[in-house]
Amino acid sequence: MVAFEPSDPGFADRIRKSYARQQIMAFIGAELVELRPGYCEIHLPYRPELSQQDGFFHAGIISTIADSAGGYASYTLMAADTRVLTVEYKMNLLAPARGERLIARGQVIKNGRTLVIAKADVGAIQDGEETPCATLLGTLISLADNTKR
Amino acid sequence: MVAFEPSDPGFADRIRKSYARQQIMAFIGAELVELRPGYCEIHLPYRPELSQQDGFFHAGIISTIADSAGGYASYTLMAADTRVLTVEYKMNLLAPARGERLIARGQVIKNGRTLVIAKADVGAIQDGEETPCATLLGTLISLADNTKR
Amino acid sequence: MVAFEPSDPGFADRIRKSYARQQIMAFIGAELVELRPGYCEIHLPYRPELSQQDGFFHAGIISTIADSAGGYASYTLMAADTRVLTVEYKMNLLAPARGERLIARGQVIKNGRTLVIAKADVGAIQDGEETPCATLLGTLISLADNTKR
Amino acid sequence: MVAFEPSDPGFADRIRKSYARQQIMAFIGAELVELRPGYCEIHLPYRPELSQQDGFFHAGIISTIADSAGGYASYTLMAADTRVLTVEYKMNLLAPARGERLIARGQVIKNGRTLVIAKADVGAIQDGEETPCATLLGTLISLADNTKR
Repeated sequence: MVAFEPSDPGFADRIRKSYARQQIMAFIGAELVELRPGYCEIHLPYRPELSQQDGFFHAGIISTIADSAGGYASYTLMAADTRVLTVEYKMNLLAPARGERLIARGQVIKNGRTLVIAKADVGAIQDGEETPCATLLGTLISLADNTKR
Repeated sequence: MVAFEPSDPGFADRIRKSYARQQIMAFIGAELVELRPGYCEIHLPYRPELSQQDGFFHAGIISTIADSAGGYASYTLMAADTRVLTVEYKMNLLAPARGERLIARGQVIKNGRTLVIAKADVGAIQDGEETPCATLLGTLISLADNTKR
Repeated sequence: MVAFEPSDPGFADRIRKSYARQQIMAFIGAELVELRPGYCEIHLPYRPELSQQDGFFHAGIISTIADSAGGYASYTLMAADTRVLTVEYKMNLLAPARGERLIARGQVIKNGRTLVIAKADVGAIQDGEETPCATLLGTLISLADNTKR
Repeated sequence: MVAFEPSDPGFADRIRKSYARQQIMAFIGAELVELRPGYCEIHLPYRPELSQQDGFFHAGIISTIADSAGGYASYTLMAADTRVLTVEYKMNLLAPARGERLIARGQVIKNGRTLVIAKADVGAIQDGEETPCATLLGTLISLADNTKR
């Protein structure tokens, strides 16, 4: 994997502020655990409120943390005066997402001028053992941050 | 659009029971509003807890109701002794999901023996006017319902 | 479906020139049949050289005309001094693509400033009857046409 | 990456026969270069007939070899009396596919009972140097081989 050079040395601080504004993350109990250039990791402990009809994590909740992990992985490489939006993503479910915790690892695949392509792999931890449960492939766009004007 | 013939005349009751077990739906406040053969509509009123960093509905939450709308649209056509799982989906975001309510309309495109292809269109209602904000295209699988054994 | 207003009244001529440069289209025998604002239709007669292992049209060939139909549907709405590139697409196969002809109908879903979201539905004509065989959902980007500088 | 155990020791021979029936491969000049359990590599030398409007490989042609690479990677793990069909795939284009040769590397991500999830990474070789140009994520299905009845 290529090493990425962030254009904004203060990327981690910028992202933690953005993450804190994503109220959905606190609502479901997701934690931003790691940030590196081109990489972001988010953890989500199990709660029955997050489940689908069989008691496993709902696919939409898996994609909620996977999308944010891929999005913030991308945002680590964007300029300080930008914001990031998801254009689209595709997610394959690999196994039932059962266990006490999900881990979503977002990773930039291609850092383009306007668009960034990122993936996110999600694993489910059950009795301390991790099973891959989903993989996401998506496109993010960098926009001028009008909210600062 | 082709009219679909459900194999299980009791599909609506079966789906309402499954929906009630999806605890995530009550947790975020989503309502199952309409069920017809090959069709399912889910509404979601706005709450700040569902927002991303700009205050709009988070993409993952949009996909949560879109995936369930597409999944239950598919499940209307499946046999009584089956359960439905999402194989994968792809979602494009068309506009910021801002407003007081989201509406996800799931619709079966192809009803295969094992796999069902469905789409879901999501609109955001602001000041009574609806704007398309996302479209999802996904694959569902019908499995024997082992939970009844 | 919304009616689209093209910014370049000469879009049809511009697209026919671009299409003529897509050598793959002549190579496989695809024909550009219709162009309207936000819409493009491409036909492809069957030839054994285009088949997969069962003698049907290969998925990659289906996507070749579907991608071009979606791309040129998008390009009808772009400015005269731009070029169009595919960012990504997702395609679901609905039925074996058997028959004497494929028809790909590209349609713009959302015409954004930089990005355009388009779909393409592909039908297979067998004995004069059309069966839906694939549906594509994709993202296109409009770039400044440097080749004119 | 997990090591996969093929259920059919004669998988390579079975796949080479299937590949030979995919007439599109000979038509565009693609070569099946490597087969291992869960892996398949296909090469495609450049020809102007395969190009889009800027002279690069057309996205549909990239997906033609990527889809076959992912499909045959999946088929290495399927039983002897089955056939493989593509359910769907999603492809992101990472860079213009320019150069003298494309290499598509298909790899199984999840080998399920009925469905297989596979990816394919495509690189373009220009002046001996490889640049990633596309990545595909798809779903394949294993079907009973009725053609043998």
